[in-house]
Amino acid sequence: MFGFTLSATDTRSEARCGQLTTPHGVVDTPAFMAVGTRGAIRGLTPRQLRETGTQIMLGNTYHLQVRPGADCVAQLGGLHRFSGWSGPILTDSGGYQVFSLSRINKITDAGVEFQSHFDGARMYLDAATSIAIQEQLGADLIMAFDQCAPLPSPRSEIVRAVERTVRWAEECRRVHQRPDQWLFGIVQGGLDLDLRADCARRLLEIGFDGYAMGGLSVGETHEEMIEVLTHVTPTLPADRPRYLMGVGTPKDLVESVRRGIDLFDCVLPTRNGRNAHVFTAQGSLKLRNQQHRLAEEPLEAGCDCYTCAHFSRAYLRHLFITGEMLGPTLASIHNLRFFQRLMGRIRDLIRSGGLERISAEFPVVAGTAEQE
Amino acid sequence: MFGFTLSATDTRSEARCGQLTTPHGVVDTPAFMAVGTRGAIRGLTPRQLRETGTQIMLGNTYHLQVRPGADCVAQLGGLHRFSGWSGPILTDSGGYQVFSLSRINKITDAGVEFQSHFDGARMYLDAATSIAIQEQLGADLIMAFDQCAPLPSPRSEIVRAVERTVRWAEECRRVHQRPDQWLFGIVQGGLDLDLRADCARRLLEIGFDGYAMGGLSVGETHEEMIEVLTHVTPTLPADRPRYLMGVGTPKDLVESVRRGIDLFDCVLPTRNGRNAHVFTAQGSLKLRNQQHRLAEEPLEAGCDCYTCAHFSRAYLRHLFITGEMLGPTLASIHNLRFFQRLMGRIRDLIRSGGLERISAEFPVVAGTAEQE
Repeated sequence: MFGFTLSATDTRSEARCGQLTTPHGVVDTPAFMAVGTRGAIRGLTPRQLRETGTQIMLGNTYHLQVRPGADCVAQLGGLHRFSGWSGPILTDSGGYQVFSLSRINKITDAGVEFQSHFDGARMYLDAATSIAIQEQLGADLIMAFDQCAPLPSPRSEIVRAVERTVRWAEECRRVHQRPDQWLFGIVQGGLDLDLRADCARRLLEIGFDGYAMGGLSVGETHEEMIEVLTHVTPTLPADRPRYLMGVGTPKDLVESVRRGIDLFDCVLPTRNGRNAHVFTAQGSLKLRNQQHRLAEEPLEAGCDCYTCAHFSRAYLRHLFITGEMLGPTLASIHNLRFFQRLMGRIRDLIRSGGLERISAEFPVVAGTAEQE
Repeated sequence: MFGFTLSATDTRSEARCGQLTTPHGVVDTPAFMAVGTRGAIRGLTPRQLRETGTQIMLGNTYHLQVRPGADCVAQLGGLHRFSGWSGPILTDSGGYQVFSLSRINKITDAGVEFQSHFDGARMYLDAATSIAIQEQLGADLIMAFDQCAPLPSPRSEIVRAVERTVRWAEECRRVHQRPDQWLFGIVQGGLDLDLRADCARRLLEIGFDGYAMGGLSVGETHEEMIEVLTHVTPTLPADRPRYLMGVGTPKDLVESVRRGIDLFDCVLPTRNGRNAHVFTAQGSLKLRNQQHRLAEEPLEAGCDCYTCAHFSRAYLRHLFITGEMLGPTLASIHNLRFFQRLMGRIRDLIRSGGLERISAEFPVVAGTAEQE
């Protein structure tokens, strides 16, 4: 039902290429996962999502529990059937909302109480509850409940978050039952390499199906994030998938793959797409700019997405200027396809032993690309 | 390049069934045309539109001239290429905006001056300008510039609108040059049957490729509208397509087909779809209602649209409740497909001589359907 096999490793870095098999299909790694917080990718149908080359979608435990509720999703056959996405799904545990919704929650050693951000209703999440909800949602890959501390934070805060994360991870491992779900542990520890190593070691002792790096992309620099990965990823078992949560830019992706990461998720392609910000190998485009008014060319030459096959930059600009819903949809389709083309080339180049060529093919990953 | 052929006529009504051939493809009539005011159907890609069975899209002269401008569309290859919709297109003349934007325009016998509703810029439209813009946009079917009076209006107002409409129609006919466009005249005259008949007669003398009924669905009752059609449509030549502008509800469509109308356009399926209002043969659904929270069934049993094939009412409700863009898109897809299924059955039943059965198959057209 499950498996993770590596088919190639890079000789000049920690990069590796493989396949993650789940009950709902195979994911080629390194993989970029599309974020469908509430069980939908903003503005894309499941078919449009699949056509971008995306193989796995994310859902979020906290947001789906707020609306429509995990009991509702379960009664309707689980998240796959509910959302119409029949491929692999991963659910976050709600741990990230301990960080992102810190203004409306209260954290104790036992768990977290949220005051719902839309109607004031209270919701309590702890390790056992998060797992129970994720079992109801029925994703293929589920996450341990963790505490993600903001960066920078005092060391004592990071220590406390690690202690809770490890204790909650034990509880998650203990209560999780569905055999058709793989449970991932989440390494916390901020930018402190010793705390990170300690957290990783203790999670390994508990034993998970995969390991995630959490608490990154939350305020630190690219270099700080990469330093953590450089030191911590090699301590994770080579035969288990490694997931860098909430990352990131094309540059982040390539550099993290080089440190041995297999899975990524990020809202960048869809959030930026909704704001008329388009990714290309040569750099980014701001579609509202006057310079695109008469631009006949597609968003990106050589792109095989539906948007680039059918529409000009000028038309996309027109849609955004006039507030047509189709603009966000078409830009998001392109951006997701861009991320998937980038990941596809990364996988190809790992297999052929030429990963260093990625920055020539995609100058945007070297940080030397033009920004409009 | 163009043609209009009738393949069947109903023996118990004026209903007829045929094909309108244009340079960009064939339209089976009676036909429902989807409204893409600014060159895009709200939230649908051209492919999604085509999959609803829609054969022809509308664009609007006034709105496309405001943004991005007809010169821009022409430089980008015309409206078909610009919008990515390669099928037949009809453009309204801007005449309807003389009515709908009456607060920001000034009407004289020569034409209409608009103060743009979004940046205050001025725009002048008259018969020659409207045709020039429509030639730049390059639609297959274009409309004469007319004055649509609100209902009710004093008779003197209606008379003046008819006089202008006829004079402007002459001018449109005189200046129009593109041989790959059919030009339609628009019959005005409010609810006054004599004025309507007079307007129709004078337009026939000028001679157009098709004839539209304008100035309806602007405040009158269904019965008043049908009375006008009953008297005026038979005075139009049988071998020319007849277009009832801006109509309508399922009931309006069926009753107007019975009076000999061939073409319709209306924002109902998309506007209502965006507001979680769904059409079904049995009546309408309001998707936000609590009763759909756990409803596993599709929007409409037996519907072959993408939405009904993949999603439950409960999921659609969830999308609307959480403000996900996908909700309006999926509801609009269903509603457009519903309108096209209705038109398809109307055509079948005209051909088989059983049009009266339409109200048994689609109770909603009899006005006896359940409304939520």
